[in-house]
Amino acid sequence: MKLSLLNNRGGMAALVALRSRRRVRFISSATTMKWEGGVSMVQGASRGIGLEFVKQLLEKNEKGHVVATCRNPNGATGLLDLKSILSIPNVIQPETTLNKVEKSSLILAYEINAVGPILVMKHMWPLLKAGGRSGTERDVAVVANLSARVGSIGDNRLGGWHSYRSSKAALNQLTKTASVEFARKKDRIICILLHPGTVDTDLSRPFQNNVPEGKLFTKEFSVEKLLNIINNTSSHDNGKFFAWDGQEIPW
Amino acid sequence: MKLSLLNNRGGMAALVALRSRRRVRFISSATTMKWEGGVSMVQGASRGIGLEFVKQLLEKNEKGHVVATCRNPNGATGLLDLKSILSIPNVIQPETTLNKVEKSSLILAYEINAVGPILVMKHMWPLLKAGGRSGTERDVAVVANLSARVGSIGDNRLGGWHSYRSSKAALNQLTKTASVEFARKKDRIICILLHPGTVDTDLSRPFQNNVPEGKLFTKEFSVEKLLNIINNTSSHDNGKFFAWDGQEIPW
Ligand SMILES: NC(=O)c1ccc[n+]([C@@H]2O[C@H](COP(=O)([O-])OP(=O)(O)OC[C@H]3O[C@@H](n4cnc5c(N)ncnc54)[C@H](OP(=O)(O)O)[C@@H]3O)[C@@H](O)[C@H]2O)c1
Ligand SMILES: NC(=O)c1ccc[n+]([C@@H]2O[C@H](COP(=O)([O-])OP(=O)(O)OC[C@H]3O[C@@H](n4cnc5c(N)ncnc54)[C@H](OP(=O)(O)O)[C@@H]3O)[C@@H](O)[C@H]2O)c1
Repeated sequence: MKLSLLNNRGGMAALVALRSRRRVRFISSATTMKWEGGVSMVQGASRGIGLEFVKQLLEKNEKGHVVATCRNPNGATGLLDLKSILSIPNVIQPETTLNKVEKSSLILAYEINAVGPILVMKHMWPLLKAGGRSGTERDVAVVANLSARVGSIGDNRLGGWHSYRSSKAALNQLTKTASVEFARKKDRIICILLHPGTVDTDLSRPFQNNVPEGKLFTKEFSVEKLLNIINNTSSHDNGKFFAWDGQEIPW
Repeated sequence: MKLSLLNNRGGMAALVALRSRRRVRFISSATTMKWEGGVSMVQGASRGIGLEFVKQLLEKNEKGHVVATCRNPNGATGLLDLKSILSIPNVIQPETTLNKVEKSSLILAYEINAVGPILVMKHMWPLLKAGGRSGTERDVAVVANLSARVGSIGDNRLGGWHSYRSSKAALNQLTKTASVEFARKKDRIICILLHPGTVDTDLSRPFQNNVPEGKLFTKEFSVEKLLNIINNTSSHDNGKFFAWDGQEIPW
Protein backbone atom coordinates (compact mmCIF):
# COMPACT_ATOMS: atom_id res chain seq x y z
CA MET A 1 0.00 0.00 0.00
CA LYS A 2 1.32 3.41 -0.93
CA LEU A 3 -0.17 6.38 0.86
CA SER A 4 0.43 9.90 -0.35
CA LEU A 5 -0.78 12.69 1.86
CA LEU A 6 -1.52 15.91 0.02
CA ASN A 7 -2.28 18.63 2.49
CA ASN A 8 -4.25 21.23 0.65
CA ARG A 9 -5.99 22.90 3.56
CA GLY A 10 -6.35 21.99 7.21
CA GLY A 11 -9.28 20.83 9.24
CA MET A 12 -10.23 17.46 10.60
CA ALA A 13 -12.61 16.20 8.00
CA ALA A 14 -14.98 13.45 7.13
CA LEU A 15 -13.50 11.02 4.66
CA VAL A 16 -14.87 10.34 1.22
CA ALA A 17 -13.23 7.48 -0.61
CA LEU A 18 -13.24 7.59 -4.36
CA ARG A 19 -12.35 4.38 -6.12
CA SER A 20 -10.47 4.85 -9.33
CA ARG A 21 -13.31 3.29 -11.30
CA ARG A 22 -15.30 6.38 -10.42
CA ARG A 23 -17.45 4.68 -7.85
CA VAL A 24 -17.82 6.89 -4.83
CA ARG A 25 -17.81 5.28 -1.43
CA PHE A 26 -18.23 6.88 1.94
CA ILE A 27 -16.06 5.32 4.58
CA SER A 28 -16.11 5.72 8.31
CA SER A 29 -13.24 5.08 10.65
CA ALA A 30 -14.73 1.62 11.33
CA THR A 31 -14.51 0.56 7.69
CA THR A 32 -11.74 -1.87 6.84
CA MET A 33 -10.74 -1.95 3.21
CA LYS A 34 -8.03 -3.53 1.14
CA TRP A 35 -6.06 -0.79 -0.57
CA GLU A 36 -4.46 -2.54 -3.50
CA GLY A 37 -2.38 -0.45 -5.84
CA GLY A 38 -1.64 2.26 -3.31
CA VAL A 39 -3.59 5.09 -1.70
CA SER A 40 -3.43 8.83 -2.20
CA MET A 41 -5.12 11.06 0.33
CA VAL A 42 -6.05 14.59 -0.67
CA GLN A 43 -6.94 16.91 2.20
CA GLY A 44 -9.25 19.81 1.28
CA ALA A 45 -10.60 18.21 -1.86
CA SER A 46 -13.95 19.91 -2.22
CA ARG A 47 -12.77 22.63 -4.58
CA GLY A 48 -9.83 24.31 -6.27
CA ILE A 49 -6.45 22.65 -6.49
CA GLY A 50 -7.45 19.83 -4.15
CA LEU A 51 -10.39 18.78 -6.33
CA GLU A 52 -8.15 18.86 -9.39
CA PHE A 53 -5.67 16.60 -7.61
CA VAL A 54 -8.43 14.05 -7.05
CA LYS A 55 -9.44 14.28 -10.70
CA GLN A 56 -5.95 13.74 -12.08
CA LEU A 57 -5.13 11.01 -9.59
CA LEU A 58 -8.25 9.13 -10.67
CA GLU A 59 -7.47 9.56 -14.34
CA LYS A 60 -3.83 8.58 -14.12
CA ASN A 61 -3.87 5.83 -11.60
CA GLU A 62 -5.80 2.83 -12.83
CA LYS A 63 -5.25 0.64 -9.82
CA GLY A 64 -4.70 3.08 -6.99
CA HIS A 65 -7.18 4.55 -4.55
CA VAL A 66 -7.81 8.15 -3.66
CA VAL A 67 -8.99 9.24 -0.24
CA ALA A 68 -10.34 12.76 -0.51
CA THR A 69 -11.13 14.69 2.66
CA CYS A 70 -13.38 17.69 3.03
CA ARG A 71 -15.23 19.42 5.83
CA ASN A 72 -18.71 18.77 4.52
CA PRO A 73 -18.95 15.70 2.26
CA ASN A 74 -22.65 16.21 1.56
CA GLY A 75 -22.09 19.77 0.40
CA ALA A 76 -19.06 18.84 -1.68
CA THR A 77 -21.05 18.36 -4.85
CA GLY A 78 -17.97 19.29 -6.88
CA LEU A 79 -16.10 16.40 -5.38
CA LEU A 80 -18.96 14.01 -5.93
CA ASP A 81 -19.56 15.16 -9.49
CA LEU A 82 -15.89 15.85 -10.05
CA LYS A 83 -16.65 19.34 -11.17
CA SER A 84 -16.43 22.74 -9.47
CA ILE A 85 -18.94 23.87 -6.90
CA LEU A 86 -20.15 27.36 -6.06
CA SER A 87 -17.65 29.84 -4.68
CA ILE A 88 -17.64 30.25 -0.89
CA PRO A 89 -16.68 33.78 0.11
CA ASN A 90 -13.22 34.14 1.62
CA VAL A 91 -13.21 34.63 5.36
CA ILE A 92 -9.64 35.83 5.42
CA GLN A 93 -8.96 39.15 3.74
CA PRO A 94 -5.24 39.44 3.03
CA GLU A 95 -3.92 42.55 4.76
CA THR A 96 -2.61 45.39 2.61
CA THR A 97 -0.86 47.11 5.55
CA LEU A 98 0.30 46.43 9.11
CA ASN A 99 -2.53 48.68 10.29
CA LYS A 100 -5.05 46.07 9.22
CA VAL A 101 -3.45 43.15 11.06
CA GLU A 102 -5.83 41.68 13.67
CA LYS A 103 -5.39 38.86 16.13
CA SER A 104 -8.47 37.05 14.81
CA SER A 105 -7.19 36.73 11.23
CA LEU A 106 -3.66 35.85 12.36
CA ILE A 107 -5.07 32.99 14.41
CA LEU A 108 -7.60 31.84 11.80
CA ALA A 109 -5.00 31.64 9.03
CA TYR A 110 -2.66 29.80 11.39
CA GLU A 111 -5.34 27.28 12.32
CA ILE A 112 -6.24 26.57 8.70
CA ASN A 113 -2.83 26.59 7.06
CA ALA A 114 -0.47 25.39 9.80
CA VAL A 115 -2.34 23.66 12.64
CA GLY A 116 -4.65 21.59 10.42
CA PRO A 117 -1.96 20.08 8.19
CA ILE A 118 0.45 19.22 11.03
CA LEU A 119 -2.31 17.52 13.05
CA VAL A 120 -3.31 15.49 10.00
CA MET A 121 0.33 14.46 9.60
CA LYS A 122 0.48 13.52 13.26
CA HIS A 123 -2.56 11.26 13.01
CA MET A 124 -1.62 9.81 9.60
CA TRP A 125 1.91 9.04 10.72
CA PRO A 126 1.26 5.33 11.48
CA LEU A 127 -0.35 4.83 8.06
CA LEU A 128 2.39 6.76 6.28
CA LYS A 129 4.98 4.61 8.01
CA ALA A 130 3.22 1.42 6.96
CA GLY A 131 2.75 2.76 3.43
CA GLY A 132 6.41 3.55 3.03
CA ARG A 133 7.34 -0.03 3.85
CA SER A 134 4.76 -1.84 1.77
CA GLY A 135 6.78 -3.02 -1.18
CA THR A 136 4.60 -1.38 -3.82
CA GLU A 137 6.01 0.33 -6.91
CA ARG A 138 7.67 2.97 -4.75
CA ASP A 139 8.68 2.12 -1.20
CA VAL A 140 8.21 5.59 0.08
CA ALA A 141 5.26 7.65 1.25
CA VAL A 142 5.08 11.31 0.31
CA VAL A 143 3.56 14.14 2.32
CA ALA A 144 3.11 17.11 0.00
CA ASN A 145 1.91 20.22 1.80
CA LEU A 146 0.63 23.07 -0.32
CA SER A 147 2.48 26.12 0.86
CA ALA A 148 2.83 29.29 -1.24
CA ARG A 149 5.71 31.38 -2.54
CA VAL A 150 4.48 34.28 -0.41
CA GLY A 151 5.23 32.08 2.61
CA SER A 152 8.92 32.44 1.79
CA ILE A 153 10.61 34.94 4.14
CA GLY A 154 13.69 35.28 1.96
CA ASP A 155 11.61 35.97 -1.15
CA ASN A 156 9.30 38.49 0.56
CA ARG A 157 9.74 41.65 -1.47
CA LEU A 158 6.23 43.10 -1.57
CA GLY A 159 5.08 42.83 2.04
CA GLY A 160 1.37 42.65 2.91
CA TRP A 161 -0.72 39.50 3.38
CA HIS A 162 0.63 39.19 6.93
CA SER A 163 -1.67 36.46 8.24
CA TYR A 164 -1.36 34.26 5.17
CA ARG A 165 2.42 34.72 4.85
CA SER A 166 2.92 34.03 8.53
CA SER A 167 0.79 30.89 8.48
CA LYS A 168 2.63 29.50 5.46
CA ALA A 169 6.07 30.23 6.96
CA ALA A 170 4.83 28.35 10.03
CA LEU A 171 3.63 25.46 7.84
CA ASN A 172 7.05 25.36 6.20
CA GLN A 173 8.73 25.18 9.62
CA LEU A 174 6.34 22.51 10.94
CA THR A 175 6.74 20.36 7.83
CA LYS A 176 10.51 20.71 7.94
CA THR A 177 10.49 19.78 11.63
CA ALA A 178 8.48 16.63 10.92
CA SER A 179 10.74 15.74 7.99
CA VAL A 180 13.77 15.81 10.30
CA GLU A 181 12.11 13.40 12.74
CA PHE A 182 10.97 11.03 9.97
CA ALA A 183 14.50 10.91 8.56
CA ARG A 184 16.05 10.39 11.98
CA LYS A 185 13.68 7.50 12.69
CA LYS A 186 14.37 6.03 9.25
CA ASP A 187 10.67 6.14 8.37
CA ARG A 188 10.29 5.90 4.63
CA ILE A 189 8.31 9.13 4.47
CA ILE A 190 9.31 12.16 2.43
CA CYS A 191 7.84 15.57 3.26
CA ILE A 192 7.86 18.32 0.68
CA LEU A 193 6.30 21.76 0.41
CA LEU A 194 4.83 22.91 -2.87
CA HIS A 195 3.99 26.25 -4.46
CA PRO A 196 1.34 25.66 -7.14
CA GLY A 197 1.89 28.97 -8.93
CA THR A 198 -1.00 31.41 -9.12
CA VAL A 199 -3.88 29.17 -9.97
CA ASP A 200 -7.36 30.13 -11.11
CA THR A 201 -9.46 29.06 -8.09
CA ASP A 202 -11.87 30.69 -5.64
CA LEU A 203 -8.88 31.53 -3.48
CA SER A 204 -7.03 33.57 -6.09
CA ARG A 205 -10.11 35.10 -7.78
CA PRO A 206 -10.07 38.39 -5.84
CA PHE A 207 -6.40 38.99 -6.74
CA GLN A 208 -6.24 37.87 -10.33
CA ASN A 209 -6.26 41.43 -11.73
CA ASN A 210 -2.63 41.92 -10.81
CA VAL A 211 -1.41 38.67 -12.30
CA PRO A 212 0.77 39.23 -15.40
CA GLU A 213 -0.40 37.75 -18.71
CA GLY A 214 0.34 34.03 -18.92
CA LYS A 215 1.06 33.71 -15.20
CA LEU A 216 -2.40 32.64 -14.11
CA PHE A 217 -2.43 28.87 -14.38
CA THR A 218 -5.35 26.54 -14.82
CA LYS A 219 -5.82 23.97 -12.08
CA GLU A 220 -5.19 21.26 -14.67
CA PHE A 221 -1.78 22.65 -15.59
CA SER A 222 -0.67 23.30 -12.01
CA VAL A 223 -1.76 19.94 -10.64
CA GLU A 224 -0.13 18.08 -13.51
CA LYS A 225 3.16 19.80 -12.69
CA LEU A 226 2.79 19.18 -8.96
CA LEU A 227 1.91 15.51 -9.40
CA ASN A 228 4.98 15.19 -11.52
CA ILE A 229 7.13 16.55 -8.69
CA ILE A 230 5.42 14.31 -6.13
CA ASN A 231 5.85 11.20 -8.27
CA ASN A 232 9.54 11.88 -8.75
CA THR A 233 10.55 12.80 -5.19
CA SER A 234 13.44 10.95 -3.65
CA SER A 235 14.84 11.04 -0.12
CA HIS A 236 17.17 13.80 -1.27
CA ASP A 237 14.12 16.10 -1.53
CA ASN A 238 12.96 15.50 2.04
CA GLY A 239 12.10 18.75 3.83
CA LYS A 240 12.41 20.96 0.75
CA PHE A 241 10.17 23.61 -0.78
CA PHE A 242 9.51 23.46 -4.53
CA ALA A 243 7.62 25.61 -7.01
CA TRP A 244 5.39 24.04 -9.70
CA ASP A 245 8.34 24.04 -12.11
CA GLY A 246 10.60 22.08 -9.75
CA GLN A 247 12.71 25.09 -8.72
CA GLU A 248 13.59 25.19 -5.04
CA ILE A 249 12.19 28.19 -3.14
CA PRO A 250 14.25 29.80 -0.35
CA TRP A 251 12.78 29.74 3.15
CA MET B 1 12.92 61.52 20.69
CA LYS B 2 14.32 58.15 19.79
CA LEU B 3 12.14 55.13 20.39
CA SER B 4 13.53 51.64 20.24
CA LEU B 5 11.07 48.80 20.44
CA LEU B 6 12.48 45.58 21.81
CA ASN B 7 9.98 42.82 21.51
CA ASN B 8 10.93 40.21 24.02
CA ARG B 9 7.59 38.47 24.41
CA GLY B 10 4.08 39.38 23.33
CA GLY B 11 1.04 40.51 25.23
CA MET B 12 -0.64 43.86 25.62
CA ALA B 13 0.77 45.14 28.85
CA ALA B 14 0.62 47.87 31.41
CA LEU B 15 3.46 50.32 31.06
CA VAL B 16 6.09 50.99 33.65
CA ALA B 17 8.41 53.88 32.92
CA LEU B 18 11.84 53.72 34.41
CA ARG B 19 13.84 56.93 34.34
CA SER B 20 17.52 56.49 33.89
CA ARG B 21 18.16 58.01 37.30
CA ARG B 22 16.57 54.90 38.70
CA ARG B 23 13.34 56.56 39.68
CA VAL B 24 10.45 54.32 38.78
CA ARG B 25 7.31 55.91 37.45
CA PHE B 26 4.06 54.28 36.48
CA ILE B 27 2.48 55.87 33.45
CA SER B 28 -0.99 55.45 32.02
CA SER B 29 -1.98 56.10 28.45
CA ALA B 30 -3.24 59.53 29.55
CA THR B 31 0.16 60.62 30.84
CA THR B 32 2.01 63.13 28.69
CA MET B 33 5.72 63.24 29.22
CA LYS B 34 8.66 64.89 27.58
CA TRP B 35 11.03 62.20 26.41
CA GLU B 36 14.36 63.99 26.14
CA GLY B 37 17.35 61.93 25.13
CA GLY B 38 15.36 59.21 23.42
CA VAL B 39 13.14 56.36 24.55
CA SER B 40 13.70 52.63 24.54
CA MET B 41 10.74 50.35 25.06
CA VAL B 42 11.33 46.81 26.27
CA GLN B 43 8.38 44.47 25.93
CA GLY B 44 8.32 41.53 28.38
CA ALA B 45 10.65 43.14 30.89
CA SER B 46 9.66 41.39 34.10
CA ARG B 47 12.32 38.71 33.91
CA GLY B 48 15.06 37.08 31.87
CA ILE B 49 16.61 38.78 28.88
CA GLY B 50 14.04 41.58 28.89
CA LEU B 51 14.86 42.61 32.46
CA GLU B 52 18.56 42.56 31.64
CA PHE B 53 17.89 44.85 28.65
CA VAL B 54 16.24 47.36 31.00
CA LYS B 55 19.18 47.15 33.37
CA GLN B 56 21.83 47.73 30.73
CA LEU B 57 19.85 50.47 29.01
CA LEU B 58 19.58 52.31 32.31
CA GLU B 59 23.26 51.92 33.06
CA LYS B 60 24.50 52.95 29.65
CA ASN B 61 22.13 55.70 28.69
CA GLU B 62 22.46 58.69 30.99
CA LYS B 63 19.86 60.85 29.29
CA GLY B 64 17.53 58.37 27.66
CA HIS B 65 14.32 56.87 28.93
CA VAL B 66 13.30 53.25 29.13
CA VAL B 67 9.71 52.11 28.84
CA ALA B 68 9.47 48.57 30.16
CA THR B 69 6.27 46.62 29.62
CA CYS B 70 5.04 43.59 31.48
CA ARG B 71 1.75 41.82 32.05
CA ASN B 72 1.56 42.41 35.76
CA PRO B 73 3.51 45.50 36.92
CA ASN B 74 2.71 44.92 40.58
CA GLY B 75 4.02 41.40 40.45
CA ALA B 76 7.12 42.38 38.52
CA THR B 77 9.24 42.84 41.61
CA GLY B 78 12.32 41.94 39.60
CA LEU B 79 11.68 44.86 37.31
CA LEU B 80 11.06 47.21 40.21
CA ASP B 81 14.08 46.07 42.16
CA LEU B 82 16.08 45.46 39.02
CA LYS B 83 16.81 41.97 40.11
CA SER B 84 15.38 38.54 39.22
CA ILE B 85 12.03 37.36 40.50
CA LEU B 86 10.83 33.85 41.26
CA SER B 87 10.60 31.42 38.40
CA ILE B 88 7.14 31.00 36.89
CA PRO B 89 6.62 27.49 35.55
CA ASN B 90 6.63 27.18 31.77
CA VAL B 91 3.20 26.65 30.27
CA ILE B 92 4.56 25.50 26.95
CA GLN B 93 6.38 22.20 26.96
CA PRO B 94 8.55 21.96 23.83
CA GLU B 95 7.51 18.85 21.91
CA THR B 96 10.05 16.04 21.56
CA THR B 97 8.08 14.32 18.76
CA LEU B 98 5.27 15.00 16.29
CA ASN B 99 3.09 12.70 18.39
CA LYS B 100 3.04 15.31 21.16
CA VAL B 101 1.95 18.22 18.97
CA GLU B 102 -1.41 19.65 20.13
CA LYS B 103 -3.53 22.45 18.77
CA SER B 104 -3.56 24.25 22.13
CA SER B 105 0.22 24.60 22.38
CA LEU B 106 0.59 25.52 18.71
CA ILE B 107 -1.89 28.34 19.21
CA LEU B 108 -0.52 29.48 22.58
CA ALA B 109 3.05 29.74 21.29
CA TYR B 110 1.81 31.57 18.21
CA GLU B 111 -0.14 34.06 20.33
CA ILE B 112 2.81 34.78 22.61
CA ASN B 113 5.68 34.82 20.13
CA ALA B 114 4.09 36.02 16.89
CA VAL B 115 0.72 37.72 17.48
CA GLY B 116 1.80 39.78 20.51
CA PRO B 117 4.91 41.32 18.94
CA ILE B 118 3.25 42.19 15.61
CA LEU B 119 0.29 43.84 17.35
CA VAL B 120 2.66 45.88 19.50
CA MET B 121 4.46 46.97 16.32
CA LYS B 122 1.14 47.88 14.73
CA HIS B 123 0.13 50.10 17.63
CA MET B 124 3.61 51.59 18.15
CA TRP B 125 3.99 52.38 14.46
CA PRO B 126 2.99 56.08 14.80
CA LEU B 127 5.47 56.59 17.65
CA LEU B 128 8.22 54.72 15.83
CA LYS B 129 7.64 56.89 12.77
CA ALA B 130 7.85 60.06 14.85
CA GLY B 131 10.90 58.73 16.68
CA GLY B 132 12.75 58.01 13.47
CA ARG B 133 12.34 61.60 12.33
CA SER B 134 13.16 63.37 15.57
CA GLY B 135 16.67 64.58 14.92
CA THR B 136 18.23 62.94 17.97
CA GLU B 137 21.64 61.32 17.85
CA ARG B 138 20.38 58.68 15.45
CA ASP B 139 17.51 59.50 13.12
CA VAL B 140 16.23 56.00 12.99
CA ALA B 141 13.99 53.89 15.20
CA VAL B 142 14.84 50.25 15.70
CA VAL B 143 12.43 47.38 16.26
CA ALA B 144 14.42 44.43 17.58
CA ASN B 145 12.32 41.29 17.94
CA LEU B 146 13.78 38.44 19.93
CA SER B 147 13.46 35.41 17.73
CA ALA B 148 15.56 32.25 18.21
CA ARG B 149 17.92 30.20 16.07
CA VAL B 150 15.51 27.28 16.35
CA GLY B 151 13.02 29.47 14.45
CA SER B 152 15.25 29.14 11.39
CA ILE B 153 13.80 26.66 8.90
CA GLY B 154 17.03 26.37 6.93
CA ASP B 155 19.05 25.69 10.06
CA ASN B 156 16.61 23.12 11.49
CA ARG B 157 18.69 19.98 11.87
CA LEU B 158 17.40 18.49 15.12
CA GLY B 159 13.62 18.72 14.72
CA GLY B 160 11.33 18.83 17.76
CA TRP B 161 10.05 21.97 19.55
CA HIS B 162 7.30 22.25 16.90
CA SER B 163 5.16 24.96 18.52
CA TYR B 164 8.08 27.17 19.48
CA ARG B 165 9.86 26.77 16.14
CA SER B 166 6.70 27.44 14.20
CA SER B 167 5.86 30.56 16.21
CA LYS B 168 9.35 31.99 15.73
CA ALA B 169 9.35 31.28 11.97
CA ALA B 170 6.02 33.12 11.90
CA LEU B 171 7.52 36.01 13.91
CA ASN B 172 10.37 36.17 11.41
CA GLN B 173 7.92 36.35 8.51
CA LEU B 174 5.72 38.98 10.21
CA THR B 175 8.72 41.15 11.10
CA LYS B 176 10.11 40.84 7.59
CA THR B 177 6.70 41.75 6.15
CA ALA B 178 6.51 44.89 8.31
CA SER B 179 10.10 45.83 7.39
CA VAL B 180 9.18 45.77 3.69
CA GLU B 181 6.27 48.14 4.27
CA PHE B 182 8.32 50.53 6.45
CA ALA B 183 11.01 50.70 3.77
CA ARG B 184 8.49 51.22 0.98
CA LYS B 185 6.85 54.06 2.91
CA LYS B 186 10.26 55.56 3.67
CA ASP B 187 9.60 55.42 7.40
CA ARG B 188 12.87 55.69 9.23
CA ILE B 189 12.29 52.44 11.09
CA ILE B 190 14.59 49.43 10.95
CA CYS B 191 13.29 46.00 11.96
CA ILE B 192 15.69 43.27 12.94
CA LEU B 193 15.36 39.81 14.44
CA LEU B 194 17.79 38.66 17.10
CA HIS B 195 18.95 35.32 18.48
CA PRO B 196 20.35 35.89 21.99
CA GLY B 197 22.25 32.60 22.16
CA THR B 198 21.31 30.12 24.85
CA VAL B 199 20.90 32.33 27.87
CA ASP B 200 20.58 31.33 31.50
CA THR B 201 16.95 32.36 32.24
CA ASP B 202 13.75 30.70 33.45
CA LEU B 203 12.97 29.87 29.83
CA SER B 204 16.13 27.86 29.15
CA ARG B 205 16.47 26.32 32.63
CA PRO B 206 14.75 23.00 31.80
CA PHE B 207 17.03 22.47 28.78
CA GLN B 208 20.39 23.60 30.07
CA ASN B 209 21.70 20.05 30.61
CA ASN B 210 22.28 19.62 26.89
CA VAL B 211 24.12 22.90 26.40
CA PRO B 212 27.82 22.37 25.63
CA GLU B 213 30.39 23.85 28.02
CA GLY B 214 30.84 27.57 27.49
CA LYS B 215 27.71 27.89 25.34
CA LEU B 216 25.32 28.91 28.11
CA PHE B 217 25.52 32.68 28.29
CA THR B 218 24.75 34.97 31.16
CA LYS B 219 22.00 37.53 30.53
CA GLU B 220 24.60 40.26 31.00
CA PHE B 221 26.82 38.91 28.23
CA SER B 222 24.00 38.27 25.78
CA VAL B 223 22.26 41.60 26.27
CA GLU B 224 25.52 43.50 25.93
CA LYS B 225 26.11 41.82 22.56
CA LEU B 226 22.52 42.39 21.43
CA LEU B 227 22.54 46.06 22.44
CA ASN B 228 25.71 46.45 20.46
CA ILE B 229 23.97 45.09 17.37
CA ILE B 230 20.92 47.29 17.94
CA ASN B 231 23.02 50.42 18.41
CA ASN B 232 24.92 49.81 15.20
CA THR B 233 22.07 48.87 12.86
CA SER B 234 21.79 50.74 9.60
CA SER B 235 19.09 50.64 6.92
CA HIS B 236 21.11 47.92 5.21
CA ASP B 237 20.18 45.60 8.09
CA ASN B 238 16.43 46.14 7.74
CA GLY B 239 14.48 42.87 7.78
CA LYS B 240 17.46 40.68 8.71
CA PHE B 241 18.01 38.01 11.36
CA PHE B 242 21.18 38.18 13.46
CA ALA B 243 22.73 36.03 16.16
CA TRP B 244 24.28 37.59 19.29
CA ASP B 245 27.68 37.64 17.53
CA GLY B 246 26.39 39.61 14.54
CA GLN B 247 26.31 36.62 12.17
CA GLU B 248 23.29 36.52 9.90
CA ILE B 249 21.03 33.48 10.40
CA PRO B 250 19.30 31.86 7.39
CA TRP B 251 15.50 31.88 7.36
N1 LIG C 1 -4.78 29.35 -5.98
C1 LIG C 1 -3.57 29.86 -5.88
O1 LIG C 1 -3.18 30.74 -6.70
C2 LIG C 1 -2.61 29.41 -4.81
C3 LIG C 1 -1.32 29.98 -4.77
C4 LIG C 1 -0.41 29.56 -3.79
C5 LIG C 1 -0.78 28.61 -2.87
N2 LIG C 1 -2.05 28.07 -2.89
C6 LIG C 1 -2.39 27.08 -1.86
O2 LIG C 1 -2.97 25.94 -2.45
C7 LIG C 1 -3.94 25.37 -1.56
C8 LIG C 1 -5.26 25.18 -2.29
O3 LIG C 1 -5.72 26.45 -2.72
P1 LIG C 1 -6.98 26.59 -3.72
O4 LIG C 1 -6.67 27.74 -4.60
O5 LIG C 1 -7.30 25.29 -4.29
O6 LIG C 1 -8.10 27.06 -2.68
P2 LIG C 1 -9.70 26.93 -2.76
O7 LIG C 1 -10.17 26.84 -4.17
O8 LIG C 1 -10.18 28.08 -1.94
O9 LIG C 1 -9.97 25.50 -2.05
C9 LIG C 1 -9.77 25.41 -0.72
C10 LIG C 1 -9.94 23.99 -0.23
O10 LIG C 1 -9.55 24.01 1.15
C11 LIG C 1 -10.68 23.70 1.96
N3 LIG C 1 -10.74 24.60 3.12
C12 LIG C 1 -10.81 25.95 3.16
N4 LIG C 1 -10.87 26.39 4.42
C13 LIG C 1 -10.84 25.31 5.22
C14 LIG C 1 -10.89 25.10 6.62
N5 LIG C 1 -10.99 26.14 7.46
N6 LIG C 1 -10.81 23.84 7.10
C15 LIG C 1 -10.73 22.79 6.26
N7 LIG C 1 -10.69 22.91 4.92
C16 LIG C 1 -10.75 24.16 4.41
C17 LIG C 1 -11.89 23.93 1.09
O11 LIG C 1 -12.93 23.12 1.58
P3 LIG C 1 -14.44 23.70 1.75
O12 LIG C 1 -15.08 23.52 0.39
O13 LIG C 1 -15.00 22.85 2.82
O14 LIG C 1 -14.35 25.18 2.10
C18 LIG C 1 -11.36 23.51 -0.28
O15 LIG C 1 -11.35 22.13 -0.41
C19 LIG C 1 -4.02 26.30 -0.35
O16 LIG C 1 -3.20 25.81 0.68
C20 LIG C 1 -3.44 27.61 -0.88
O17 LIG C 1 -2.88 28.39 0.14
C21 LIG C 1 -2.97 28.45 -3.85
N1 LIG D 1 16.87 32.12 27.07
C1 LIG D 1 17.27 31.63 25.92
O1 LIG D 1 18.17 30.77 25.86
C2 LIG D 1 16.67 32.08 24.61
C3 LIG D 1 17.17 31.54 23.41
C4 LIG D 1 16.62 31.96 22.19
C5 LIG D 1 15.60 32.91 22.18
N2 LIG D 1 15.11 33.42 23.35
C6 LIG D 1 14.02 34.40 23.27
O2 LIG D 1 14.31 35.55 24.03
C7 LIG D 1 13.10 36.09 24.58
C8 LIG D 1 13.22 36.25 26.10
O3 LIG D 1 13.47 34.97 26.68
P1 LIG D 1 13.89 34.81 28.22
O4 LIG D 1 14.84 33.67 28.27
O5 LIG D 1 14.27 36.13 28.76
O6 LIG D 1 12.49 34.32 28.83
P2 LIG D 1 11.92 34.43 30.33
O7 LIG D 1 13.04 34.52 31.31
O8 LIG D 1 11.01 33.27 30.43
O9 LIG D 1 11.15 35.84 30.30
C9 LIG D 1 10.01 35.90 29.60
C10 LIG D 1 9.48 37.33 29.56
O10 LIG D 1 8.36 37.30 28.66
C11 LIG D 1 7.16 37.60 29.36
N3 LIG D 1 6.08 36.71 28.92
C12 LIG D 1 6.04 35.37 28.98
N4 LIG D 1 4.86 34.91 28.53
C13 LIG D 1 4.13 35.99 28.20
C14 LIG D 1 2.83 36.19 27.69
N5 LIG D 1 2.02 35.15 27.43
N6 LIG D 1 2.40 37.44 27.44
C15 LIG D 1 3.20 38.50 27.70
N7 LIG D 1 4.44 38.39 28.20
C16 LIG D 1 4.90 37.14 28.45
C17 LIG D 1 7.49 37.37 30.81
O11 LIG D 1 6.61 38.16 31.59
P3 LIG D 1 5.88 37.57 32.92
O12 LIG D 1 6.88 37.76 34.02
O13 LIG D 1 4.66 38.41 33.01
O14 LIG D 1 5.59 36.09 32.67
C18 LIG D 1 8.95 37.80 30.89
O15 LIG D 1 9.06 39.20 30.95
C19 LIG D 1 11.98 35.13 24.16
O16 LIG D 1 11.34 35.66 23.00
C20 LIG D 1 12.71 33.86 23.83
O17 LIG D 1 12.00 33.08 22.89
C21 LIG D 1 15.63 33.03 24.57
